[in-house]
Amino acid sequence: MTTEATSGGGWAPIRRLRSYEQVILAIEHRILAGQLHVGDRLPPERQLAELLGVSRAAVREALRALEALGILVAHTGSGGDAGSILVGQPSEAMTTLLRLHLALSNFTVDQVVEARIMIEGWSARSAARHGPAPADAELAELLDAMDDQTLSLQQFHDLDTQFHVAIATRSDNQLIAHLMQSLRDTMRDHMVRAFHAMTQPRNVLTQLRAQHREIYNLIQQGDGDAAAAAIEHHIRNFYAQHGR
Amino acid sequence: MTTEATSGGGWAPIRRLRSYEQVILAIEHRILAGQLHVGDRLPPERQLAELLGVSRAAVREALRALEALGILVAHTGSGGDAGSILVGQPSEAMTTLLRLHLALSNFTVDQVVEARIMIEGWSARSAARHGPAPADAELAELLDAMDDQTLSLQQFHDLDTQFHVAIATRSDNQLIAHLMQSLRDTMRDHMVRAFHAMTQPRNVLTQLRAQHREIYNLIQQGDGDAAAAAIEHHIRNFYAQHGR
Repeated sequence: MTTEATSGGGWAPIRRLRSYEQVILAIEHRILAGQLHVGDRLPPERQLAELLGVSRAAVREALRALEALGILVAHTGSGGDAGSILVGQPSEAMTTLLRLHLALSNFTVDQVVEARIMIEGWSARSAARHGPAPADAELAELLDAMDDQTLSLQQFHDLDTQFHVAIATRSDNQLIAHLMQSLRDTMRDHMVRAFHAMTQPRNVLTQLRAQHREIYNLIQQGDGDAAAAAIEHHIRNFYAQHGR
Repeated sequence: MTTEATSGGGWAPIRRLRSYEQVILAIEHRILAGQLHVGDRLPPERQLAELLGVSRAAVREALRALEALGILVAHTGSGGDAGSILVGQPSEAMTTLLRLHLALSNFTVDQVVEARIMIEGWSARSAARHGPAPADAELAELLDAMDDQTLSLQQFHDLDTQFHVAIATRSDNQLIAHLMQSLRDTMRDHMVRAFHAMTQPRNVLTQLRAQHREIYNLIQQGDGDAAAAAIEHHIRNFYAQHGR
């Protein structure tokens, strides 16, 4: 087998990095090396600039980029309180990313719907296979909460979102649950518009409630294929009737 | 049904936005309103700062955040050439996001592997269902290229990645293809280490080649379930033997 050294494999032309990109890499390397963890605080801007030998502007730009990626939140206090804290919530950043790229037509609403069907079908199968879980109580509570006839469309929609995300969370795969949350949040405006454009919202909500209970029951019975099929029908039917 | 106006639904406490966040929102609103498209150029920093009534520093921080999200690339020329261009490639930004959150243990390598199996199984089923496609020629070429016995491990790994991403791309869902590319790139270092730690690389590569051809043939035969099962075995088997 030809080795890296003799084939030249793995080498590529160098692009000159800007200062702020080098700051991002310096922070990334510390994270990858396990020297920085969720909850840790970065040194204040001024100190970080001195430590890395770059301008404060370069540090600030890098921190904004990492904030956009959901890696840290800025702490705007001064003195001992200053600095940014590393966080563990990728969903919001992923949502911003997906929402902007959807707006730029880098993919379509239909493709987001298909991705949701893929993830929710997988989650339902996974949940049905793993049997009863503590999250089942949460799912049941959400179903009961959605039965409240005095809910606004907005409140119903938010509970509906929680129910669907809870199924993904029940799969015990945080990455897939974050993806699900992001895809759902990416579609939020679209969904809220769809709810408000309904001519017979009471009838639609009654139908959605029944479908949610069917999905829940199929998961409880351990019938993953049927649960996945029910979710697919639930989502496709909604978009066909209200989604455009 | 209680309406938004009477229930107070949809209202939430306000968080004071920093200048650079307002700049991001201003750009995002123009994108969402369809007034900015991929390929368009933003005004130069100085002009954008004047137009929005904020400091140049705030504009620069916002542009860095949007760069991190893969929304634009900076154009560092001056005068008429200055400004940033909107782009349509979310994979790289998604990879950075996923890689950093993986490093922060916000999810695990096992969960990335499960997500890959979900996406690739879905893609194989989708490809098998839709019948022959122009991308099949590309898949066949990649299989032939991987048969070259003089490839370095690195080169084999890169072709291997292209083959798996090409199956997702064949599904005609850009979002899912981007997700697949990101998940695979997120695991790149892990995978390259695994390839280099093999004690019998020639034997492993022979096995991988045979599995790739089996997956390709099952897709060509339209047997989505078998193709998805073959991909799942292919991925699980690799990780069980070399992945840790």
